[in-house]
Amino acid sequence: MPFSFSFLPKEIQFFDLFDRQAEMLVATARCFKKVISNASLDDEHLKEMRDLEHDTDEVTHEIMERLNRTFITPFDREDIHTLANEVDNIVDILYTTTKRMKVYKLNKANPELIQFADVIKESIEYLARALNLLRDHKKNNKRIQDCCIEVNRLENAGDQLRDMVIGRLFDSTKNTLMVIKWKEIFESAETALDICEDVANIIGTILVKQG
Amino acid sequence: MPFSFSFLPKEIQFFDLFDRQAEMLVATARCFKKVISNASLDDEHLKEMRDLEHDTDEVTHEIMERLNRTFITPFDREDIHTLANEVDNIVDILYTTTKRMKVYKLNKANPELIQFADVIKESIEYLARALNLLRDHKKNNKRIQDCCIEVNRLENAGDQLRDMVIGRLFDSTKNTLMVIKWKEIFESAETALDICEDVANIIGTILVKQG
Amino acid sequence: MPFSFSFLPKEIQFFDLFDRQAEMLVATARCFKKVISNASLDDEHLKEMRDLEHDTDEVTHEIMERLNRTFITPFDREDIHTLANEVDNIVDILYTTTKRMKVYKLNKANPELIQFADVIKESIEYLARALNLLRDHKKNNKRIQDCCIEVNRLENAGDQLRDMVIGRLFDSTKNTLMVIKWKEIFESAETALDICEDVANIIGTILVKQG
Repeated sequence: MPFSFSFLPKEIQFFDLFDRQAEMLVATARCFKKVISNASLDDEHLKEMRDLEHDTDEVTHEIMERLNRTFITPFDREDIHTLANEVDNIVDILYTTTKRMKVYKLNKANPELIQFADVIKESIEYLARALNLLRDHKKNNKRIQDCCIEVNRLENAGDQLRDMVIGRLFDSTKNTLMVIKWKEIFESAETALDICEDVANIIGTILVKQG
Repeated sequence: MPFSFSFLPKEIQFFDLFDRQAEMLVATARCFKKVISNASLDDEHLKEMRDLEHDTDEVTHEIMERLNRTFITPFDREDIHTLANEVDNIVDILYTTTKRMKVYKLNKANPELIQFADVIKESIEYLARALNLLRDHKKNNKRIQDCCIEVNRLENAGDQLRDMVIGRLFDSTKNTLMVIKWKEIFESAETALDICEDVANIIGTILVKQG
Repeated sequence: MPFSFSFLPKEIQFFDLFDRQAEMLVATARCFKKVISNASLDDEHLKEMRDLEHDTDEVTHEIMERLNRTFITPFDREDIHTLANEVDNIVDILYTTTKRMKVYKLNKANPELIQFADVIKESIEYLARALNLLRDHKKNNKRIQDCCIEVNRLENAGDQLRDMVIGRLFDSTKNTLMVIKWKEIFESAETALDICEDVANIIGTILVKQG
């Protein structure tokens, strides 16, 4: 079999799978925003989150399988492995956050958590664009880097938001159990932004190695 | 020195070490179950956990040393490294959980934690079997995969158990400090099951690469 | 270009960067000790921590860039990657700890946290020495190993200190919110020692592979 035949299609398959992960990411961020804004923790809305988590798992699994069976990969094998895993982790933590809110019966919309959901959605949209642009990474190098810079900026914003919100929580909440519950939810939201930054950093590493 | 001479014995030594790790795992799960069931947090029982943690450390260390000195390994070097480390982490977290219970003076048997200890023991028994079967992984492929599926199933069961138990804890416990203490212990138990699942996933990756 | 020309200078550059990381580490440990001892959580002192965190980030980034562009590295590429990242994580967690204390308004010197700051400073000084000695690791093998043993010993000491301090916290503190706050700070301090141990273990692995 000629080299170019087996080589090119496989490269393309990886980029198709990155696109699918990007799509899942954006859908999850939107669903998360909706659940948080309406504090709609009934089974129907959580099921939508669970389905997204499940579908992302399948795409991630497909990337891993392909990685283990493919000899030539578009980027370093381990970078693809870490990238796919961390994208999956973003979806996981957003789903886990909504599940935990249900366990805690936190079914009243919280304006500060809505703020977090907005920052997360914005960060994820930049990441998804960066993932889409990977297909032509040579041509898109500058645009991908710009996306990654935005993700880093939003992680810093999230850091400050968390500090402010947690400080306020301890100062103003009378009910200690509520402090424990909300502290966990806010930290979980901020961790989602940390993982977005991790993904941006892996993409940055991939660009440097390809450069 | 003929190739087969240096090759085969070294492969076998790795499998012997996996068997020893599997043995330590099962012994730790049993000891954990015993400590939890009797809420026996006196020094004698914690010493048994500490000895198991220490012995597992030594086996893990031996795997790492051998890995660093051996040129040809039965599976990918990094997969063995991660596998051995994560098995060690299971033993670590079970020991840490009992130590923390002593610090918190939680010396009354808790039926929900006993349930966790049972799920952990079952998951670890499947993992140990999978580790033993690695020696003839070609022949045992299907049986190893079945073990890994069980470990994944038990992680899901643990997830649901944790959500139920933590929900109940916040709803019914009057003493906030007790909520903080037990929440940490239950989450720690569930993390043990997460790490079991990680080990099962690494074993799955190894099978795919060997397939 | 002759091989030795491109090879030696690049090796040396890595060791120069390890020295810079070691320097940042020690400066951070000293600043942390100062902030903790005086409970000086005003902006000026936190700025010093933030600057150190920022400078360490830059050195770490330089190591990563060089790693991605350099073909021949003094040790395994991944070991250098993990080493630099974990050193960076030590600085990060010390900075985060002081930031969190500010959020929590914990501005009264705590003798037990000062004890932690001392253990952390001692551990970091051994690590820094080990990093400096890496340049002549063949000659310094025994001395580097001795440093790593000390770091491991101090991690054990930190473990016991944390258990004692947290036990006392739950037994004696009337204010539950204060228990939550201090528990987090003490665990964060102990995690710093865990990461020091991780760094010592990576250095140990590097020595074995070079041996």
